[in-house]
Amino acid sequence: MRALVFDRKLEFRGDYPDPVAASGESVVRVSFAGICGTDLEIARGYMQYRGVPGHEFAGRVVQSQNSALRGKRVVGEINAGCGRCATCSAGLARHCPNRTVLGILGRDGAFADFLRLPDINLIPIPDSIHDDVAVFVEPLAAAYEIFEQVHLARNQTIVVIGDGRLGTIVALALKGEKYLPIVAGHHREKLARLAELGLETADESSARDKFDVAIDCSGSESGFRRAMELVRPRGKIILKSTAAAAAEINLAPIVVNEITVVGSRCGRFQPALDALAAGRIDPRPLIDGTFALDDGVAAFEAAKNPLNFKILLKAS
Amino acid sequence: MRALVFDRKLEFRGDYPDPVAASGESVVRVSFAGICGTDLEIARGYMQYRGVPGHEFAGRVVQSQNSALRGKRVVGEINAGCGRCATCSAGLARHCPNRTVLGILGRDGAFADFLRLPDINLIPIPDSIHDDVAVFVEPLAAAYEIFEQVHLARNQTIVVIGDGRLGTIVALALKGEKYLPIVAGHHREKLARLAELGLETADESSARDKFDVAIDCSGSESGFRRAMELVRPRGKIILKSTAAAAAEINLAPIVVNEITVVGSRCGRFQPALDALAAGRIDPRPLIDGTFALDDGVAAFEAAKNPLNFKILLKAS
Repeated sequence: MRALVFDRKLEFRGDYPDPVAASGESVVRVSFAGICGTDLEIARGYMQYRGVPGHEFAGRVVQSQNSALRGKRVVGEINAGCGRCATCSAGLARHCPNRTVLGILGRDGAFADFLRLPDINLIPIPDSIHDDVAVFVEPLAAAYEIFEQVHLARNQTIVVIGDGRLGTIVALALKGEKYLPIVAGHHREKLARLAELGLETADESSARDKFDVAIDCSGSESGFRRAMELVRPRGKIILKSTAAAAAEINLAPIVVNEITVVGSRCGRFQPALDALAAGRIDPRPLIDGTFALDDGVAAFEAAKNPLNFKILLKAS
Repeated sequence: MRALVFDRKLEFRGDYPDPVAASGESVVRVSFAGICGTDLEIARGYMQYRGVPGHEFAGRVVQSQNSALRGKRVVGEINAGCGRCATCSAGLARHCPNRTVLGILGRDGAFADFLRLPDINLIPIPDSIHDDVAVFVEPLAAAYEIFEQVHLARNQTIVVIGDGRLGTIVALALKGEKYLPIVAGHHREKLARLAELGLETADESSARDKFDVAIDCSGSESGFRRAMELVRPRGKIILKSTAAAAAEINLAPIVVNEITVVGSRCGRFQPALDALAAGRIDPRPLIDGTFALDDGVAAFEAAKNPLNFKILLKAS
């Protein structure tokens, strides 16, 4: 099959082996896949991943033991737990210590004609959602994970730190659920675009208010520090960004101001799918380009431009 | 009056001015005061504090406009809010941005014959509690703050990281409330003493279990890192220690494992006072020496020995 493959460098191959479904797995023909920041990091060597990247996708089940899935349009949760450990038994397969992760860890991903995933990961797409919209379920699920972890009261003040892809999708999810976040960022063009999407924005460096909740989507080490400054005593920081890695961070303000920090990663797909189906969020204004799978390397180049929000690959 | 005074160095003075109560404040004659880690840090220059240190005390109200307090044995909450700002109005005077803190920030402390505090900070000591026990209310309140912030289920596994003063008092509070914490530390003598107090202990470096909750009382930058290793996915870290300051910390595990971090500082006195009055905690085995106020400098030297848990000053 055709596939984008990363092995020290990213290249398009026409002869990559088709996926072979294990017991309990189905094979999906990919229609659309989205390139996200993690994919760009993988192409820089993150996670030491070798293989087919890509984890945001929509497609159709072309091979399955499960008659309820055969022929269905699906999206798929990307973490595949072992199904046998204590973590999986507790319903936390996304945290299984032996998990594989589609296109990120030990499992070929979605930038290809076909992929395989466990049946329990696959979720049919309602007819009202087109495949190019369904691609957004995965990043949107990560945004909706916030609601699964933390109760946010609608009168709480919320600042989203970071005007990039993650910040935008988180802010759209909040807006879709009738919260009124302010997105604080550094980039004039991006903030202008967010304003066009109906979001309230602020210049991050001049923000002085104290918020009940700060959501760090900055992808930079400064974001967490800024979150500590912008949150009120006893407030909450939701940490979406893993890029604060190995920074010199003084955690004393967390203790002194009794702040709660909640790490937040991937989420269940269903709440995000429900929001898209109900039209509470329309991600299509975020699509800045659609490339054929064969042009995947060029698509990655386009995705590196931070002003391009979402670049899609069309595989079939 | 007599006082220990820190001004570049710590010294005993016999001629320090008596405190002058402001409106709404009372004057307390100190009977016992305890030396804690923060006092040792202040004597090393922490907080750039100049004046009388000391914030763990018991005493008797000798001057007050409030007839309910006059002549009463009292302990006192150490944070004095301005009483006028939004934070104070929200009942969070302990987080008032304009607060003074007894013996720590802008307000002379308890290592003296007398101190002053707002009436609302003073809490009568039940007859069943002696002054040398009441001194432990302040550090114990900081431990009880955990229960005010986080619901801990009694079947959750809890590791307290740090076998020092803070770890010990937190572990005793947990034990007093019928939890079964394990104290993980590095110091054989301290762990042996904790075992004598009926606490379960473990060598920190060999601990491999994953706990539901990790409480960092280490006072060292390594404690938070260790907490991230010892807590299960979706578990909680309670951060009691401000000493993780400016360390190189990789926060990615917080996001990847969706850990919640709760910063925890001072607490309300009443729950701690209740626990002492009910005999759920007996702190007296922790007293390793009682010095006259005049010998305060020597008392500080004794407190610097990490094997001495609590050194008291007797002022009257």
